[in-house]
Amino acid sequence: MGMTITEKILAAHAGVSKVSPGDLIMARVDVALGNDITAPIAIKAFRESGAKKVFDKDRVILVPDHFVPNKDIASAMQVKLVREFAREQELTWFFDAGEMGVEHALLPEQGLVLPGDLVIGADSHTCTYGGLGAFSTGVGSTDLAAAMITGEVWLRVPESIRFVYEGTLNPWVEGKDLILYTIGDIGVDGALYQAMEFTGPVIEALSVEGRLTMANMAIEAGGKNGIIAPDALTEAFVQDRAVRDYTPFHSDPDAGYARVITYDVGNIEPQVAFPHLPENTRGISEVGEVVIDQAVIGSCTNGRIEDLRSAARVLTGNRAAKGVRLIVIPATPTIYRQAMDEGLFEIFMNAGAIISPPTCGPCLGGHMGILAKGERAIATTNRNFVGRMGHPESEVYLSNPAVAAASAIAGKIVGPDRVA
Amino acid sequence: MGMTITEKILAAHAGVSKVSPGDLIMARVDVALGNDITAPIAIKAFRESGAKKVFDKDRVILVPDHFVPNKDIASAMQVKLVREFAREQELTWFFDAGEMGVEHALLPEQGLVLPGDLVIGADSHTCTYGGLGAFSTGVGSTDLAAAMITGEVWLRVPESIRFVYEGTLNPWVEGKDLILYTIGDIGVDGALYQAMEFTGPVIEALSVEGRLTMANMAIEAGGKNGIIAPDALTEAFVQDRAVRDYTPFHSDPDAGYARVITYDVGNIEPQVAFPHLPENTRGISEVGEVVIDQAVIGSCTNGRIEDLRSAARVLTGNRAAKGVRLIVIPATPTIYRQAMDEGLFEIFMNAGAIISPPTCGPCLGGHMGILAKGERAIATTNRNFVGRMGHPESEVYLSNPAVAAASAIAGKIVGPDRVA
Repeated sequence: MGMTITEKILAAHAGVSKVSPGDLIMARVDVALGNDITAPIAIKAFRESGAKKVFDKDRVILVPDHFVPNKDIASAMQVKLVREFAREQELTWFFDAGEMGVEHALLPEQGLVLPGDLVIGADSHTCTYGGLGAFSTGVGSTDLAAAMITGEVWLRVPESIRFVYEGTLNPWVEGKDLILYTIGDIGVDGALYQAMEFTGPVIEALSVEGRLTMANMAIEAGGKNGIIAPDALTEAFVQDRAVRDYTPFHSDPDAGYARVITYDVGNIEPQVAFPHLPENTRGISEVGEVVIDQAVIGSCTNGRIEDLRSAARVLTGNRAAKGVRLIVIPATPTIYRQAMDEGLFEIFMNAGAIISPPTCGPCLGGHMGILAKGERAIATTNRNFVGRMGHPESEVYLSNPAVAAASAIAGKIVGPDRVA
Repeated sequence: MGMTITEKILAAHAGVSKVSPGDLIMARVDVALGNDITAPIAIKAFRESGAKKVFDKDRVILVPDHFVPNKDIASAMQVKLVREFAREQELTWFFDAGEMGVEHALLPEQGLVLPGDLVIGADSHTCTYGGLGAFSTGVGSTDLAAAMITGEVWLRVPESIRFVYEGTLNPWVEGKDLILYTIGDIGVDGALYQAMEFTGPVIEALSVEGRLTMANMAIEAGGKNGIIAPDALTEAFVQDRAVRDYTPFHSDPDAGYARVITYDVGNIEPQVAFPHLPENTRGISEVGEVVIDQAVIGSCTNGRIEDLRSAARVLTGNRAAKGVRLIVIPATPTIYRQAMDEGLFEIFMNAGAIISPPTCGPCLGGHMGILAKGERAIATTNRNFVGRMGHPESEVYLSNPAVAAASAIAGKIVGPDRVA
């Protein structure tokens, strides 16, 4: 029996010809990633271990993004600690000051994560890079510390689920809707410690941004990783960015899967995940009357240029309903600049939006648009757990950028066809 | 003996023909202002008084600006309380969502404060509007509550100090430098409970933005208010904005002053106020070697379009030193939009800046760039007290926007002539 793409990447990084689900392996990492919340813990463990140098100054990447620009003294001290470590270790990739952006948007954009890579990061949405055909997964801060020292990580090889997306996409249905629909179908533990391999003609036609969005949310179904076979679109995306060589992998035709799940996307309309779990999905036509106070467009899930363009398409000539806070957060300085240069900021400002510098911001209740008691937000982010964006009695509804934009205009959750 | 402009405004609002320093008067207010920190306290007092309606829904103005977009649950709850009060009272001027900006920049911009007005606000920098020839002063939140109910305020008529600025401005010397120099000369209690009346040919030639900057910092010398006689420049500024009629006042030639202080501005170079008081001023040539971590351009003092243009002029073709966080905060959505449309954002992004949506942000240690222990910032803000921008062991140096921009480029405090 052949191997899946996930198994092939893990085998290659373990230095063996074959791995099978359940195998415990010690694997070489291409990138070890930390942010302003997790890196300080990893750095403390690094110090306590007596280690002097990271295994490779090009492959330990630190990105302050959750509470930047520093929201308070505590976050300022965290970033300072990370900054000083990066300086001491002479890390090549530390994104500071005007370079700061959302880690999972920055790394693909800067060519730092590549097809066939094995990436670990002390952040649950590290699974994003599966959209490029990498194995990438979130780990704890102490696992990160170990990898920073040794360049290796212990992993149990996951089983794979193959998701096949067929048919023709309905208008306004994007990668976000496919993954929300999938999570709604299998549940938030539907892929527990399994690889979610997204395949089929719809995925082959999906933009790299849409693929990154899908892989990003694999963790919301409990997945160890999400992954999509690299192809010509992937190649076009990485060719001018890649900072090093890479080796793409593809699943064998006779690879073994725990399950194969096929969807006809013609049955999928834009999705909204209701509080307080990403699995509480409904088609936009079944949302009913949900009045909102805030709409957030951004995050590692949907803060890329394609996402901003999609929102802008809906917002053009429209304005957010009175009192609705429409917050747009380009995920990186490059995206910010591109959106500005393309005239999207003009559209956003005409729509009454607040444009934030790159940050995770409100996604995890950090800052830049925290909800009060009883308030409701629609957000292009990835989680809508209790209190995720603020007060325990606030609510978050997840959607794609076009739906979030349309909802901002209407003052309640609606599809783009209701306002465009 | 005649009256000063301050005395005339107070007399007119007390309904008497003459007032003298020391008089206690009950005066009619044209505008009563609160923000997201102070309005909640005032609203609580309003409720406890049993009052049902504010005295005039066009003249009670509430501006959430200190911790917006909401930085945490507490600030979100504060703004929610203010929002609900504004809705209940049907206030005409409540700046929410995409309209949010810095109160003391918004009110002049929107024509809500006018020459000859008597304005009170529960914020110490309410004195800003003296730049338009208004009497405006900061009050406590309970004084604000009383004014919200009655439309009146108790005041003791202040003595006036007349400052006369003569001579020719040196390059890069702006309103900010004149007021910093003045505070450096008379000290932070040099004008305690006195009116600071800024006069002379240099003031007559100063832009309205520069005048607003000067009046803004009157409180930093202990002044009850700062004030500048309205003239043709003032008229040009307000004529298309004014939401109502107004009556300009001017000091009589024989008005009485506690002191008259004359400066030859030819002796004034760009000023820097060292930690931890605005009076610790030095000319830029006497600063020595002060390495910085952050440069902040914004606030009610220097976040207007003229300030951003001045910074952009220095930043054009330059880039912030590696690791220096250059944070630019346009003070209102209109300024933000104007700066973007004029191409200033292009310059800021090329310089590696972080552009924030309108907020008071780091000025008072709120959010959006808080300092860690041992860090230093240069800022165009108004106060450099211990811990003002973050950790008690951080430092803030005050300057004009051109000096802040030049310092960002150099990575240490320097004048614009060193980088331009």
